[in-house]
Amino acid sequence: MAAIQEGRLILLRHGQSLYNKENLFTGWTDVDLSEEGREEAKRAGRILAKSGLLPDVCFTSWLKRAIHTAQLALGEMEWEHIDCIKSWRLNERHYGAWQRHNKDAVRKEVGDERFVAIRRGYDTPPPPLPDGDPRLPQNDPKYASLPPELLPRSESLADTRRRTLNYFARNIAPRLAGGETVLVSAHGNSLRALVMAIEKLTPEQIVKVEIPTGEPILYRFDETLHLLAKESLAQK
Amino acid sequence: MAAIQEGRLILLRHGQSLYNKENLFTGWTDVDLSEEGREEAKRAGRILAKSGLLPDVCFTSWLKRAIHTAQLALGEMEWEHIDCIKSWRLNERHYGAWQRHNKDAVRKEVGDERFVAIRRGYDTPPPPLPDGDPRLPQNDPKYASLPPELLPRSESLADTRRRTLNYFARNIAPRLAGGETVLVSAHGNSLRALVMAIEKLTPEQIVKVEIPTGEPILYRFDETLHLLAKESLAQK
Repeated sequence: MAAIQEGRLILLRHGQSLYNKENLFTGWTDVDLSEEGREEAKRAGRILAKSGLLPDVCFTSWLKRAIHTAQLALGEMEWEHIDCIKSWRLNERHYGAWQRHNKDAVRKEVGDERFVAIRRGYDTPPPPLPDGDPRLPQNDPKYASLPPELLPRSESLADTRRRTLNYFARNIAPRLAGGETVLVSAHGNSLRALVMAIEKLTPEQIVKVEIPTGEPILYRFDETLHLLAKESLAQK
Repeated sequence: MAAIQEGRLILLRHGQSLYNKENLFTGWTDVDLSEEGREEAKRAGRILAKSGLLPDVCFTSWLKRAIHTAQLALGEMEWEHIDCIKSWRLNERHYGAWQRHNKDAVRKEVGDERFVAIRRGYDTPPPPLPDGDPRLPQNDPKYASLPPELLPRSESLADTRRRTLNYFARNIAPRLAGGETVLVSAHGNSLRALVMAIEKLTPEQIVKVEIPTGEPILYRFDETLHLLAKESLAQK
């Protein structure tokens, strides 16, 4: 039997957005990258080009900070001709009523303990968006075509994990098993969910993992989706 | 039986590229849009947004002037979350040995009659790229994965038509029959091939058709792919 090509998964977390810069909870708010975030994306492209990793396909969330990160990185690689498949299931964790609020102000309001439980815990969601809130996903034409019962009003990391891993199993894993090189440009918490599954981490372990921004992480798999190796591709 | 949604096809020809500006034959040369070309793309996005035409999916060629046109138009529409599927089969006509050469110089060299026969004729290709020419598609890593026998050394409009319509039949027409709204961002000659098929034009008719740049054209189809109407969406 001929050897089957190994599958390669490249995870790329978007860099600084305009909200990160202002210390606001972002979640599903569709803010763009800052100039620094654009530079991080291009740098990631140069790292990938140097490593000779040419993706066969690119996946992103529906949020422009992840979409633009992929576009800028691929532009820098002169490798823009690959398909770019997008799903809301790769979106950042939905931060509910905390979205667009200042992180320090929220901490002061709810107290340290509750703040840390929600922000760094595994299965505690922030307070949900109330009926009629303009921030509800169904008020955005992008999400209007989806069944309303799928759209969150707030999410714990466990909620984000469920939808992200469902998407991974249906759309990304089959390509890795087929020997493709797949770029996923997404967010701190949707990527955390993938890392948790790939590295078989417990809830206690994953909440301590910080995915670096703008530094691609490479996972290599054999044809049974057995993990062969993990490499950080940070610029030396 | 419930009514089936009509399929909508939006054709968008990229605007000015850096080579158009310098009066060079471009073909498969992967040059970017000029600043004017970027503005044309954004204007097309504003026209689409105003008309309420929100595509379900976007198709482009493998050439960055078409890819960026789609990205800029969709960015302007705040509608960047749709999948962008790309194929070399939507590329511009391959201009063979004329690629990167000045149009006036070529006309002077080959004479008016031959120039017009190749440039505006239906089945006369320009002289093919010779063995070892750095402009051969197989020298570009993007095309290296394709079977070499698919890659042209030069094309007549009839050659461009064949591969473009093959792609349309396999990938775009099924979506139109399914009631989707499809944006195709491509080139003068690959779009001409589509227009020729959709409007049932003869070779004599199609060579006289000029597709406008940056002005989306809309075709509406019923569920049998019968053409219902054509509309130009130029800004009033």
